[in-house]
Amino acid sequence: MNVKTVLVLLVLALATIFALVCVLLTRGKGPSTCQHQPLQEEDSDGGQSLVFADLSPEEMVQVVRYLRGSLGVQLVDASRAKPSDNCIASIDLQVPAKAEVLRFLDEGGARPRREALAVLYFGNQPEPNVTEYVVGPLPTPAYHRDVTVQRYGGTVPYHRRPVTGKEYMDINAHIQQELRKAPRFLAACCDSDGTDLAILTTAPRGFKSGDRATWFVLFQNMPGTGYYLSPVGLEVLVDHSSLDISQWAVSRVFYNGQYLADAGALEDAFVRGLLEVIRLEKPQAEAVLGSMRPRQPPGSPAPLQFEPQGPRYSVRDNRVTFQGWSIAFGMNPNSGPRLFDIRYRGKRIVYELSLQEALALYGSNCPGSMSTRYLDGSFGIGRFAYELVRGLDCPYSATYVDRHYLVESESPKTNQNSLCIFEHDAAIPLRRHFSDSQSLYYGGLRRNVLVIRTISTLINYDYIWDFMFHSSGAVEVRVHATGYISSSFLHGQGTDYGNRVGPHTLGTMHLHHIHYKVDLDVDGQMNSLETQDMEYELVQDPWSQQNSMERLYLRRGRLQTEDEAAFPLGAPMPRYLSFASPNLNRWGHPRSYRIQIASLAGKHLPTSSPMERAISWGRYQLAVTQRKEEEPSSTSIYNQNDPWTPTVAFADFINNETITNEDLVAWISVGFLHVPHAEDVPNTVTVGNSVGFFLRPYNYFDEDPSVDSPDGVYFSSEQDSGVCGTNPLACLSLTAVCAPHLPPFRYKGFLNLSLAPLPGEL
Amino acid sequence: MNVKTVLVLLVLALATIFALVCVLLTRGKGPSTCQHQPLQEEDSDGGQSLVFADLSPEEMVQVVRYLRGSLGVQLVDASRAKPSDNCIASIDLQVPAKAEVLRFLDEGGARPRREALAVLYFGNQPEPNVTEYVVGPLPTPAYHRDVTVQRYGGTVPYHRRPVTGKEYMDINAHIQQELRKAPRFLAACCDSDGTDLAILTTAPRGFKSGDRATWFVLFQNMPGTGYYLSPVGLEVLVDHSSLDISQWAVSRVFYNGQYLADAGALEDAFVRGLLEVIRLEKPQAEAVLGSMRPRQPPGSPAPLQFEPQGPRYSVRDNRVTFQGWSIAFGMNPNSGPRLFDIRYRGKRIVYELSLQEALALYGSNCPGSMSTRYLDGSFGIGRFAYELVRGLDCPYSATYVDRHYLVESESPKTNQNSLCIFEHDAAIPLRRHFSDSQSLYYGGLRRNVLVIRTISTLINYDYIWDFMFHSSGAVEVRVHATGYISSSFLHGQGTDYGNRVGPHTLGTMHLHHIHYKVDLDVDGQMNSLETQDMEYELVQDPWSQQNSMERLYLRRGRLQTEDEAAFPLGAPMPRYLSFASPNLNRWGHPRSYRIQIASLAGKHLPTSSPMERAISWGRYQLAVTQRKEEEPSSTSIYNQNDPWTPTVAFADFINNETITNEDLVAWISVGFLHVPHAEDVPNTVTVGNSVGFFLRPYNYFDEDPSVDSPDGVYFSSEQDSGVCGTNPLACLSLTAVCAPHLPPFRYKGFLNLSLAPLPGEL
Repeated sequence: MNVKTVLVLLVLALATIFALVCVLLTRGKGPSTCQHQPLQEEDSDGGQSLVFADLSPEEMVQVVRYLRGSLGVQLVDASRAKPSDNCIASIDLQVPAKAEVLRFLDEGGARPRREALAVLYFGNQPEPNVTEYVVGPLPTPAYHRDVTVQRYGGTVPYHRRPVTGKEYMDINAHIQQELRKAPRFLAACCDSDGTDLAILTTAPRGFKSGDRATWFVLFQNMPGTGYYLSPVGLEVLVDHSSLDISQWAVSRVFYNGQYLADAGALEDAFVRGLLEVIRLEKPQAEAVLGSMRPRQPPGSPAPLQFEPQGPRYSVRDNRVTFQGWSIAFGMNPNSGPRLFDIRYRGKRIVYELSLQEALALYGSNCPGSMSTRYLDGSFGIGRFAYELVRGLDCPYSATYVDRHYLVESESPKTNQNSLCIFEHDAAIPLRRHFSDSQSLYYGGLRRNVLVIRTISTLINYDYIWDFMFHSSGAVEVRVHATGYISSSFLHGQGTDYGNRVGPHTLGTMHLHHIHYKVDLDVDGQMNSLETQDMEYELVQDPWSQQNSMERLYLRRGRLQTEDEAAFPLGAPMPRYLSFASPNLNRWGHPRSYRIQIASLAGKHLPTSSPMERAISWGRYQLAVTQRKEEEPSSTSIYNQNDPWTPTVAFADFINNETITNEDLVAWISVGFLHVPHAEDVPNTVTVGNSVGFFLRPYNYFDEDPSVDSPDGVYFSSEQDSGVCGTNPLACLSLTAVCAPHLPPFRYKGFLNLSLAPLPGEL
Repeated sequence: MNVKTVLVLLVLALATIFALVCVLLTRGKGPSTCQHQPLQEEDSDGGQSLVFADLSPEEMVQVVRYLRGSLGVQLVDASRAKPSDNCIASIDLQVPAKAEVLRFLDEGGARPRREALAVLYFGNQPEPNVTEYVVGPLPTPAYHRDVTVQRYGGTVPYHRRPVTGKEYMDINAHIQQELRKAPRFLAACCDSDGTDLAILTTAPRGFKSGDRATWFVLFQNMPGTGYYLSPVGLEVLVDHSSLDISQWAVSRVFYNGQYLADAGALEDAFVRGLLEVIRLEKPQAEAVLGSMRPRQPPGSPAPLQFEPQGPRYSVRDNRVTFQGWSIAFGMNPNSGPRLFDIRYRGKRIVYELSLQEALALYGSNCPGSMSTRYLDGSFGIGRFAYELVRGLDCPYSATYVDRHYLVESESPKTNQNSLCIFEHDAAIPLRRHFSDSQSLYYGGLRRNVLVIRTISTLINYDYIWDFMFHSSGAVEVRVHATGYISSSFLHGQGTDYGNRVGPHTLGTMHLHHIHYKVDLDVDGQMNSLETQDMEYELVQDPWSQQNSMERLYLRRGRLQTEDEAAFPLGAPMPRYLSFASPNLNRWGHPRSYRIQIASLAGKHLPTSSPMERAISWGRYQLAVTQRKEEEPSSTSIYNQNDPWTPTVAFADFINNETITNEDLVAWISVGFLHVPHAEDVPNTVTVGNSVGFFLRPYNYFDEDPSVDSPDGVYFSSEQDSGVCGTNPLACLSLTAVCAPHLPPFRYKGFLNLSLAPLPGEL
């Protein structure tokens, strides 16, 4: 090869390099994957929010170890414990007293001791009981204190305890045994030997304190589909009050409108032809009522939200920050999501915002449903908040965090990715104005909202719990109900209690009522409750005095006592109700937050009902009381199984104490009446089934705080709105043309679950 | 250079080429721009929906040409017409009669003739009047028919006509002339000679039929910001009832709590020191109350929605289709958005869904506000629906369409991009269930909703009109209020009528009440109205008879007459109300759609008010009447200026006719009481200021229609949910990693506007 050839080759190579570089540079201008920008540092709280943090698995383990070593009684793991054993029911954070927390947060006081609340079922004691201990200090417990009497004014009798998974399993065995007495009937009605039926609990369990007799409803099991829509018509009343399982007994059986003594009597009646039997066929997999298996192949993907430069909120430990908001979040295994120390621009607005209870109260002409008043807190709103499905339960790009709990066990369990946090584009302006006169301009701000969500599956239905934070300083709380409806076997005048939604299925009417605690601290701990509403007054026109007009005016009031501030469900309320600080805003009005409730609640259970006091929070759409450390919650997990002697009766909180310039709590009920209809199959849709409330600034600021948002848009007719420097919307076609980075889909929500029955299901 | 060196260079060059090629190949796997997939063809309707299409500009031009040639009177362009001239007030589609349309759509009948409705103000006639003509057939008109008497039962007196832009301009000149009588006062109060003040109309204009005397409120003009927050305390009552402008007169002047005969008297009182004058400073541009100019530099972009394979809905002419939905849309220049022939899966559910009226009723201790009851339809809810801002008013990638109107002119005008259509990810499941027992699975569907939106700017405030279509077969209608509040000059007991929101600004309390017509045709034209609600009955437990319980049951009813179906605002309504077909679904229930209203309405004006009949639709939260061609609308644009003899009084529609098995219309009122507070500055936020209603299938189907959605997700514990073939969510990290194509930002909304005053503003 001569030099010339080599040189030619070299020149060619260099030309190729040049060409390739050109191509590369051009290509470089194509879209790239979105690059996450580091967040501008939001104020760090130096771990202050950890005072509210749920227990870590390690802490739970330490508490179990301490209890096993220190109680001086034999503990059996709850998953194996008989009613006559002692076991650990649950271990959760003991939230420190507010005064102590505020000294720590606001006054540089000492960090409150970290403590746990341990609930023990003592079946193996002379006087069986439930005992609650405060255990501390964490991480290395050294003491425990029985707080039962202090909390409830007396000991908690053992019969009030929730039914454990083990108890349900034992009941299941008992029912199975009973069903063996009716083989011909079962073969005829259900093409079954009884072992393949699903069994659903109801509650409460009797009519008076001490009763523990539960109606269980039997369903055709539908692998892969909710059996809740396929009752076979058979229901069984089991008395499981004895601590000696062998004493349990079936005390009644119901089938298709008839009541019989037991399964033997059922078989007998069947054999003698005295029973009207509805023969149910085993459904074909494709035609199962309530199947959610898609019937259409997937189409093109739906609109998807992405974050061109990454999330604009941050999550550290149990604290979320976003555009001036700071929220500490947690989960009570029983009562569910709880937020603490909600601040906006550094100022606390809400000390505690927590779900208290969810009541589902049914009607039917079958015994199980007609007596059902589920208090979901006693089943576990928090522990049944399972892993969320990315891209469906929350946006694909949301942040997912784990929650841990210890319930009916001696070791902690994890609900992985069970709480999600995301910024949502509500696709509507938060505010906007187009000016068509005097001067031409446009100003506005998109409504981007920070959402904290968790979803609880309570047997058949799913509650979606949302807490939303707006750039206007408003907090929005809402709950949607979805999942399967519950149902009864259709017989007789069944449609007096709902609609028929399947061949033999009555979608049973029910109401969902939900209770929240909102401990507002508006510009300080001491607040008063102000009301405003409209009236018309007939006046002479002031300029001619010759004509009259109905003039609109504002009637302002301040409520003095708890009794005045307890608004019965269904009764009219003042249109404006607000928590007011004694401090004034720039314009001379008390700095306030308004409570605005959006609810479609049904009627509350009549107070003449012997169990009404257990749900007496439901009497009120809103009640405002003095905040008391001794009134931490409006209900108790013990209310479900002894609603006749409620462990906590909310009505007692309302005793006409003064509510002016006090530390106040707003207790808010929301809910709706649900009459199931054909379209509730397979699942109730969330559209129209949303209730909740807003906490809105009302003269709290001197102007709308969203004026300081970095997302504001403004341009006038004299500006070129197409220029990025003038109008941030004009930058999007440059900055937001990257491809979102979507992590691969993963779901491990089933891994924690065995097919063993769960509370409420067998 | 020796061969060796050259060879080394060549090798280096080849290595470089190799490296570059590698980089190129790797880069080639990077994301690309999203490619739009062609939509699967939705059913075409062969142009049937065009029967509802708004007039095209060409059609409007033809009608003007015809009128000019055929009426035999002299027409002056409305922009120049004196009250004593004749002019064209508006030209809009004459919607054909329903019977005719249904014959065409459903029975293969002839296409109805296309006609226009032309409104003429005849000031230059012996008996001045407003006349409405039907003009047809389009596109080449050959006839006109006076329909005034047929529509209104009599002629429409001239004094009922809305105030035109020209009339406002003439009033402006008159007020300016008047103000020249008070130079020293104006200099003192407002640092002004009067010419730089903004003047805002109020309405109605007097106390009895024939009155045309309007209070005008004066404000400091704030270039680039809403002047509505800066009243100077001066208001002027102008009698402009005469057709001879020279006869117009100022009949009263108000300043800071005092009433005077005219501006001369004002100046006199000022000079004599009898007037308490509040000296206002000219605000600095930066410190203007209500400025929307951003105070922070833009941050990183907010979450953005994109469509990985393009839109999944289609818009052709006036028809949108989306996943089984088909909707014809249009805009009435006065009453605003109107939808027709809303079908789901080919079946009509709603024949007409249209906005009727928006009332804003104020309280104050200043004369203008205290007498204000704006009926926005008479100003023009449709014509003031301006261009929408991409990325703020609607998602960046929404589809934007133009609307055309002809009002007070002889040539059509265009509101470009003034209606938007998009699919929105509501970031919540439409339905979902996680199964934790018996069998482990997850099923669900995202809530993706088709939104049709338009936003009307009515002087200071902006109404966001949304119509939403869900995969569950539900229609959701909602309205948000935003924009500037109106205000009064703060004096005396001003805070009896609102809150102080600025140095001299009283945010005046008011209510927004909004009326909709919903002509449902549920599985056929003939429907009945069913009610359902809950009750408790005290019963013995059926199994032991030893205990009693409060049993929930369903009370079903059917309303027989219009009077029974007229539900007063604020009174309780049955919790379930539905339009029922005589046909049954598979489970034996009447196929129905339920109406569910979400409203926070204030109190209706007392019926003793002499103007109440003009807004008597506001008496009812819901009223159901027989549909009549003679009752097309619940109000009239002539009601604003003569509410004392309303041209249309909705209360008259309710005359106890039967409503069982008839063609029925639901008339729905929604609204809220707004007590402005500091955070309404600069603009009212939409959070918490949303009201509306749902139309929800209620036993209309045999199951939830969303089971057929191509977006459904289902996987069981036995499947690998991370595999795209099993779970469409697992495909997203492959299919949705393209960069959205965002067109450059363009906005021409100001181009159509001159700085000439618009109706309602001077």
